[in-house]
Amino acid sequence: MIKAIVNISLKAGVLDSQGKAVHHALESLHFNAVKDVRVGKQIVLQLDCDDKKKALADVTKMCEDLLANTVIEDYDIELV
Amino acid sequence: MIKAIVNISLKAGVLDSQGKAVHHALESLHFNAVKDVRVGKQIVLQLDCDDKKKALADVTKMCEDLLANTVIEDYDIELV
Repeated sequence: MIKAIVNISLKAGVLDSQGKAVHHALESLHFNAVKDVRVGKQIVLQLDCDDKKKALADVTKMCEDLLANTVIEDYDIELV
Repeated sequence: MIKAIVNISLKAGVLDSQGKAVHHALESLHFNAVKDVRVGKQIVLQLDCDDKKKALADVTKMCEDLLANTVIEDYDIELV
């Protein structure tokens, strides 16, 4: 079993309205040290596979095909 | 400036319908090695603060007060 952690975030320059809303809410709660907030997704996959190289190739394909919108999102993959 | 990365995930045992939908979609695309999928959030905060101890305390309070629903979600904080 390999655990793959995929972090998906909006590319720099893409408007993050969810992040802006969270930032505004934190300011309302008087957390004034916060200068920027970006909200992304974290997808944790359990793979029935023992070959890390194959797992990385598979998860990369999953990201390209389904998990990430590569026009506006970046992803990074960590295998545990 | 301190960068805080907050990963928020559903607690074990809480039904993750988004994860199930992603799992099903991956199976439809013939990624048969996938055994489980959990979908969480990743929030990246830029803090105008140089004291890591204070930053950690602040971000913990943000999680408890706003970012996470601690009844059904776990969070972990990483300072960079």
